Amino acid sequence: MAEIIVAPHAGFCFGVRRAIALAEKVSAEKGGKRIWSMGPLIHNPQEVQRLRGLGIEVMASEEDAKEGDTVIIRSHGIPPQKERELLQKGLRLVDATCPYVKAVHQAVEKLVQEGYFVVLVGERDHPEVIGTLGYLQEAGGTGVVVEKKEDLEKLKNLERVGVVAQTTQSEQFFKEVVGELALWVKELKVINTICNATSERQEDVYELAGKVDVMIIVGGKNSGNTRRLYQISSSLNPRSYHVETAEELKPEWFVGVQRVGITAGASTPDWIIEQVKSKIQELLS
Amino acid sequence: MAEIIVAPHAGFCFGVRRAIALAEKVSAEKGGKRIWSMGPLIHNPQEVQRLRGLGIEVMASEEDAKEGDTVIIRSHGIPPQKERELLQKGLRLVDATCPYVKAVHQAVEKLVQEGYFVVLVGERDHPEVIGTLGYLQEAGGTGVVVEKKEDLEKLKNLERVGVVAQTTQSEQFFKEVVGELALWVKELKVINTICNATSERQEDVYELAGKVDVMIIVGGKNSGNTRRLYQISSSLNPRSYHVETAEELKPEWFVGVQRVGITAGASTPDWIIEQVKSKIQELLS
Ligand code: F3S
Ligand code: F3S
Repeated sequence: MAEIIVAPHAGFCFGVRRAIALAEKVSAEKGGKRIWSMGPLIHNPQEVQRLRGLGIEVMASEEDAKEGDTVIIRSHGIPPQKERELLQKGLRLVDATCPYVKAVHQAVEKLVQEGYFVVLVGERDHPEVIGTLGYLQEAGGTGVVVEKKEDLEKLKNLERVGVVAQTTQSEQFFKEVVGELALWVKELKVINTICNATSERQEDVYELAGKVDVMIIVGGKNSGNTRRLYQISSSLNPRSYHVETAEELKPEWFVGVQRVGITAGASTPDWIIEQVKSKIQELLS
Repeated sequence: MAEIIVAPHAGFCFGVRRAIALAEKVSAEKGGKRIWSMGPLIHNPQEVQRLRGLGIEVMASEEDAKEGDTVIIRSHGIPPQKERELLQKGLRLVDATCPYVKAVHQAVEKLVQEGYFVVLVGERDHPEVIGTLGYLQEAGGTGVVVEKKEDLEKLKNLERVGVVAQTTQSEQFFKEVVGELALWVKELKVINTICNATSERQEDVYELAGKVDVMIIVGGKNSGNTRRLYQISSSLNPRSYHVETAEELKPEWFVGVQRVGITAGASTPDWIIEQVKSKIQELLS
């Protein structure tokens, strides 16, 4: 009997799963009434389409939502100033900010209270970072976003620096930034707020790819984290394939195969993974 | 006119200079009576010999000192438990612990008070580290010495870690340790206690070696920090020479030379640097 093993952390992370579950719950309660999400809940067009079917529309502009409407804050979070603004407009907010993102907000507040200048390692224009900077401002603190090594140059004369990271920050860069800062400042406090969703997904592949005959990675061809999973898998198993949907699976990949591994990038919904799994089952039998 | 430039930080560091000045003062007050130093005040046989001439003997065993004797604690410091023990024996202590080493003791006490597990980056058997571990114990804290990357493995499950360094720790290794730890622990506090004596000496050479015709590095042939200065100098100026004393200077090095740079390792006394300088002056004229 051929065997199919789906990696334990395939697909959506905890925070996105939670946000979508919340959205579905709100949709059920509202009985088909229109609900807004502030930006897409997940970067996956098929899933956004499915949610639209449940009455959850992506807000194009804040003017879209009218008094009394329900607005879902997605996993990335928003600045507290923005939250107040929306409440003042009479909107009903459903906060699906990921608890790990909330932990970044709290870490920033703590560092500000303790008198640290805050360094947020992340991408300046990322919605999560914009949200976190809002909490920094709200707490009355000062700080900067560090995106690349050169951003550190300006920090040479600081005495007490507190560091946090965007949840999806690469560990390698975070490590380098912390190491450099430790040499420059008198006192450094680091609260590691990197979420392990990305590394868990990658560790799954390190664990699984060598143990199966064929490894299938499911996810958008332009999804960076999916491509990375495919790279890792290929380095361990030459019979690794990256597909977006079940249609792309080729029968010849599975000839004489006993064990197939499946994993999926963080933006791949479970139902697409399921379709891939069923198709493979069919090809194997 | 030929010119000789002595690097601003050539020779003894601040802490050693201070310890020797203290020893000389004690010697003057004691009027030739025997004074002990706990270990050599500096790793330079000629200087130890000179101090012996001032009545300052290196203690071979703690039994050497009798009640009423004066004992100098050198720049590395000692554990507070040892200090009490010596005082109980009726010895008079002169504390020449370097203020930068005291700063490490204080940093450790602070981290313990704040509830951190302490990581001391340094050499387990170094007298300074032994002293600092005494302060860790005295404060009721727990911690470890990290000497090499493998020592970090045991620290993977800690939640709150505070890091300090032996004052002469290499910046590169400290940086790597801090970076790794930042990924593993929930909260990391780093107090950079590396003394800049070593890097100042090296920066002097980077600054000076390229601007002179000949560069002379003075210091023990087995002194690691002197050899490093010579390495840096050679990479910038092929006419770099490492000598232990003025006798080793060769007239041919200075033929047609306009500018000579001099620096010295951290264990080279000023009077040896002066002798080298005078001899070069002679050779240049
Ligand atoms: S949204 Fe996902 S990537 Fe981490 S921070 Fe939350 S689990
Ligand atoms: S003894 Fe010297 S090397 Fe630094 S810590 Fe004190 S100045």
